[in-house]
Amino acid sequence: MAQWIWYPGDFEVWLGNIFNNRRTERGAMFPPFWKQDSHWVTVEFSTKVCLEKPEKITIAAEGRYNFALDGRLQFGMPKTYDIPAGEHSLNFKVWNQVTPPALYVEGDTIHSGPDGWLATYEDKIWIDENGVAHGSGIYVTPGYWKFHNIDYRPSCFHLEHEERQAVSSETVGDGRLFDFGKETFGRVFPVLLEGSGMIGIYYGESREEALDKEHCETLDLISCNNGIMEYMPDTKAFRYIYVECFNGNGIRYERFDMYYEYAPQSRSGSFRCNDEEVNRIYDVSAYTLDLTTREFFMDGIKRDRWTWSGDAIQSYQMNYYLHFDSDCVKRTIRQLRGKDPVTAHVNTIMDYSFYWFISISDYYLYTADTAFIHEIYPRMQTLMDYCLGRTNDEGMAEGKPDDWIFVDWVDFPMHKRGILCFEQILLCKALEAMALCADICGDHRSQERYMRLADQLLRRIKDIFWDEKLKALLHSIEDGSLNTQITKFPNMMAIIYDFLSPKERIDVLHGVMLNPEVEPITTPYMRYYELEALCIMGKHDYVMEEIKAYWGGMLKEGATSFWEKYVPTEHGTELLAMYGRPYGKSLCHAWGASPLYLLGKYFLGVRPTKPGYTEFEICPVLGGLKWIEGSVPTPNGDIHVYADNKVINVNVNGKGNGIIYFTSYTTPTCDGGVLEHLHDNHYAVRFEGTAASAAIRISY
Amino acid sequence: MAQWIWYPGDFEVWLGNIFNNRRTERGAMFPPFWKQDSHWVTVEFSTKVCLEKPEKITIAAEGRYNFALDGRLQFGMPKTYDIPAGEHSLNFKVWNQVTPPALYVEGDTIHSGPDGWLATYEDKIWIDENGVAHGSGIYVTPGYWKFHNIDYRPSCFHLEHEERQAVSSETVGDGRLFDFGKETFGRVFPVLLEGSGMIGIYYGESREEALDKEHCETLDLISCNNGIMEYMPDTKAFRYIYVECFNGNGIRYERFDMYYEYAPQSRSGSFRCNDEEVNRIYDVSAYTLDLTTREFFMDGIKRDRWTWSGDAIQSYQMNYYLHFDSDCVKRTIRQLRGKDPVTAHVNTIMDYSFYWFISISDYYLYTADTAFIHEIYPRMQTLMDYCLGRTNDEGMAEGKPDDWIFVDWVDFPMHKRGILCFEQILLCKALEAMALCADICGDHRSQERYMRLADQLLRRIKDIFWDEKLKALLHSIEDGSLNTQITKFPNMMAIIYDFLSPKERIDVLHGVMLNPEVEPITTPYMRYYELEALCIMGKHDYVMEEIKAYWGGMLKEGATSFWEKYVPTEHGTELLAMYGRPYGKSLCHAWGASPLYLLGKYFLGVRPTKPGYTEFEICPVLGGLKWIEGSVPTPNGDIHVYADNKVINVNVNGKGNGIIYFTSYTTPTCDGGVLEHLHDNHYAVRFEGTAASAAIRISY
Repeated sequence: MAQWIWYPGDFEVWLGNIFNNRRTERGAMFPPFWKQDSHWVTVEFSTKVCLEKPEKITIAAEGRYNFALDGRLQFGMPKTYDIPAGEHSLNFKVWNQVTPPALYVEGDTIHSGPDGWLATYEDKIWIDENGVAHGSGIYVTPGYWKFHNIDYRPSCFHLEHEERQAVSSETVGDGRLFDFGKETFGRVFPVLLEGSGMIGIYYGESREEALDKEHCETLDLISCNNGIMEYMPDTKAFRYIYVECFNGNGIRYERFDMYYEYAPQSRSGSFRCNDEEVNRIYDVSAYTLDLTTREFFMDGIKRDRWTWSGDAIQSYQMNYYLHFDSDCVKRTIRQLRGKDPVTAHVNTIMDYSFYWFISISDYYLYTADTAFIHEIYPRMQTLMDYCLGRTNDEGMAEGKPDDWIFVDWVDFPMHKRGILCFEQILLCKALEAMALCADICGDHRSQERYMRLADQLLRRIKDIFWDEKLKALLHSIEDGSLNTQITKFPNMMAIIYDFLSPKERIDVLHGVMLNPEVEPITTPYMRYYELEALCIMGKHDYVMEEIKAYWGGMLKEGATSFWEKYVPTEHGTELLAMYGRPYGKSLCHAWGASPLYLLGKYFLGVRPTKPGYTEFEICPVLGGLKWIEGSVPTPNGDIHVYADNKVINVNVNGKGNGIIYFTSYTTPTCDGGVLEHLHDNHYAVRFEGTAASAAIRISY
Repeated sequence: MAQWIWYPGDFEVWLGNIFNNRRTERGAMFPPFWKQDSHWVTVEFSTKVCLEKPEKITIAAEGRYNFALDGRLQFGMPKTYDIPAGEHSLNFKVWNQVTPPALYVEGDTIHSGPDGWLATYEDKIWIDENGVAHGSGIYVTPGYWKFHNIDYRPSCFHLEHEERQAVSSETVGDGRLFDFGKETFGRVFPVLLEGSGMIGIYYGESREEALDKEHCETLDLISCNNGIMEYMPDTKAFRYIYVECFNGNGIRYERFDMYYEYAPQSRSGSFRCNDEEVNRIYDVSAYTLDLTTREFFMDGIKRDRWTWSGDAIQSYQMNYYLHFDSDCVKRTIRQLRGKDPVTAHVNTIMDYSFYWFISISDYYLYTADTAFIHEIYPRMQTLMDYCLGRTNDEGMAEGKPDDWIFVDWVDFPMHKRGILCFEQILLCKALEAMALCADICGDHRSQERYMRLADQLLRRIKDIFWDEKLKALLHSIEDGSLNTQITKFPNMMAIIYDFLSPKERIDVLHGVMLNPEVEPITTPYMRYYELEALCIMGKHDYVMEEIKAYWGGMLKEGATSFWEKYVPTEHGTELLAMYGRPYGKSLCHAWGASPLYLLGKYFLGVRPTKPGYTEFEICPVLGGLKWIEGSVPTPNGDIHVYADNKVINVNVNGKGNGIIYFTSYTTPTCDGGVLEHLHDNHYAVRFEGTAASAAIRISY
């Protein structure tokens, strides 16, 4: 089947500009403060065919185009063409300044798509001393997505929407307050609008915000003429809207409804257990991720509305346990990277560049999508060149004046200048990601180089930052001296990335992670890694208590989606403020949804051990619950797990070699796999996934 | 006065894409085969003001925009704003995917423009550990041109046009042939079109081409419905059009007229002498340059219709002696360079990259425009990095597989692979241009480096290629061995760029330039440099004969503009063919107009000796003519020269120190300057130009 094709990454660059420029701050547009790139305006697409019989092709393009058959240009912009039988080369050049040049070609056997087609933004024709023309362009597999219909052009892409009504409304002052029942996202519109005048729409994630016309983060002021609004409000995030009409001449409306906008998903992971609070935490997490999974993975839906690399890597990982929407992962990775030349870190943040690399090796582990690695590797190289070009003489990443060192929003004093241990650990993992992708692309010289750099850096991290007395990685070097502050940040990342010896890990667990004297983390963003590290160290009971206390705490405060930040000691309107603004905090922030990831990966315990789940392990852990049950999507099908303290049932739809790990104090029995006694009370069941569905029943 | 501003270079990048994509080949669009860039889609403009009293500003933008006063975003997209008295910062962000983001701000004292305003595509805001936001963007002076009217927006830019009619028409076969009298450029349109059917319009620079429907280079096939054409033909180059109607239903028209399209010019150089053939050559040269001076300097107006760096540098130089349209020079330099990253040589041709650098030092010599040097220097650096990154271990430019080595279209065997002496000479001059611009920008470390590289390269050129026996620079090194072919190309460039000792120059003059055994040059392109070198060597009489023979030869063949190539031994339809196509040759090619440059610079003899004509020399040479007279435009005003074998009269409107050099076998007298006897029969008159007009009269 033919599909629309374009230069890879260009659809995302273009769509990303639209996406990132929709942010507003109190009615003013608010574009990103980093470089926004553009698509290549002229792209050549080509294929070679060998036809048994003549074939008529239909040609459509987004842009002005030409068509050359066997190197000979044809007249005008033909909509159809009769290709004779035999071997032929087909070349199309499309120029489009406005949206990415895109092409659709369909015949009986000829179909535009990634197979057998090439794209270039520069065919570099040159003429030799004998007058013969040569081409030296760099050709790549074209970009594509789901545009199989000649009439659904890539530039027409939009999310889905459905009409929804407020659950209640009330008169407040001179206006009306509509409550849509929970955090939501879309365009509001008036029903039965009449007359002329101004309409003010004040959006609030909270009732307080919607009613605070002077401080609410988003609003629309729209003039109406005889029932027609000057413009339709753009999408916003809100639960409440407060509507006031003024300067009116008979202006009235019956109510405000909304178009809820969403990215449709074909499949989902799930989680249920005996604890209803945990189930509710899971559901609100899933809704939070749904609201932030859009054209790209968004951070917060109210104020931020940009793609952010540090937020995005967590969305990807949660997504692997919810919708497995790998297209949205790829789109976001492409969009965040943009194009060469690299003039700043991703989102201008040093850590966010490093997460970008790491997100790609993660993506590969979950999907085994080598085609994407081949596509993105050149842009990985140029970004890594930029990063390495800014390291100091010892190969360590030290913030330059224009690097934003983010780490986390912290409430305690923590310096961010100098050489942070945290940043070195991320860089080290990023170098490992480079080595992995270099290997996949057959670039073995670079693979060795990146691996060598990673090894050297890890040795330096240990030499410089590991304090054998304090049993922890220290914070930083500032002006040549060690800053011996201990924070969880570098220590938990070192556990997650497996940079510590078994003994060091246990030291860190007790000396840092469970040490009440170390400053607590107050963003779900870094609690994500904190709790992941604790799961890796087997502290599931503790993690479950934390999930219930922290995310349960937000629910008790009335959350209908999870927040950008939560300090359990705060209450009431205090909880709404951030960045010095009364409603500055995002009440629907992707990084708030981490229970999705923790419950899927460390309680259901499903995780790939080889790329694309060709091998995987299942390590169900109850963590204090009586039973847990759920599904995890994989590229090959779903893995369903049920566990209580007597049985583990696993159903696998799809190929792949699985191992179930569990502990038992009695001798377990097993139906459907090969039981193995590992040591002490540790057991494993090995089995082979099948497309038909493999069922394993373990009693222990 | 306020004016529209944009990110520097982006207007040209955008306009260049429209310009370069207008090329067609027999009805098919024909985009360039090199990378086409795009404008930055989001640009921030800012200024700081200190107002004595409040001031209302009017704001207009091309794109969606925001406005922040003192860092605080204002609601929506305000069209006016009242700025209070006092010190304020004004920041505007404009997003536009389609055309370059542009801004216009006007108040009593606040005027958007290059003075006091800055632009960036990346303000790089980041937040430090104390929550304080910082910006680390790189800010540059905004781009601007002549858009002083709020309603004449940069994206609406177009050339001027005027209606013109054919001078004759005749019926040929089933159609009509219209003759517009001479080479021209514009859109044709039917007068009193009626009925329905198809119209075929076949364009010809020659009568033969227009009548050859199967082989003419450009054509339009347009369907008409009740007297309405489906589309208006785009601009074309032609002298003749042949029009046929077919599949008709009452289709008829009275005649075809045209809109002649042109770039208006405010002033002109001139040349007149006693020889009417030379006068006619000058006029046709001027018309040729007029036709090719458009949004940018174009090479050939019929087929090529792209910007080409090797052609463009000659257009610039001719332009300095005709219209002194320095805006068009700057636009073309910016457009040719495009944006980073550099992925290929300019136009994919190695020599064309080198000419690009050289054209900038040339431009500086004629204009002293340091602002432009500051603007373009960063892009010079990245292109030079690319060029130097491709040199061999000895610092010599050796063609890689995807470099086009052009030199010239030659009819004799000449290898173009390996290390060509010609390319090294251009690179050496390009390095000198880099050193000059580095100096202007205060980048003294780079200046030294470029100068050192140029010196080393020149020594190597002499060591390797200078043959003391043959008294010439040899052609190349191929596969490690000298190719001892002698061509005029490297030798004449070495004279022009002053890379030879006085003795070597004389050797080259006789051994190469005047040696009938060396293959002749057959393009006006390289005849330009050939004749320039001969002028430098004082061979004006010979050059004048050549001008009359070569350009006069084209006139005798009926030329109304000068050609891409001319071989005097060819005649009739032979003259129309090139590239294996019967009408492939461009009959209006910028590089055909070189007499403009030769007559202005070496016969009137006017040339700057310090940047911007602050110092200049005038060396009138009759070259076998009885008298010559003409004007040369300079940034400061016109220089008018009259010379015969008795008197030299010079009038200068504008400041600058001038020296008139001449020879006299009698004792000259002088009115209006200071006469100096140099040596033998060589004299000089020194004078100071004034705004009022300085007049110098020399009798000799």
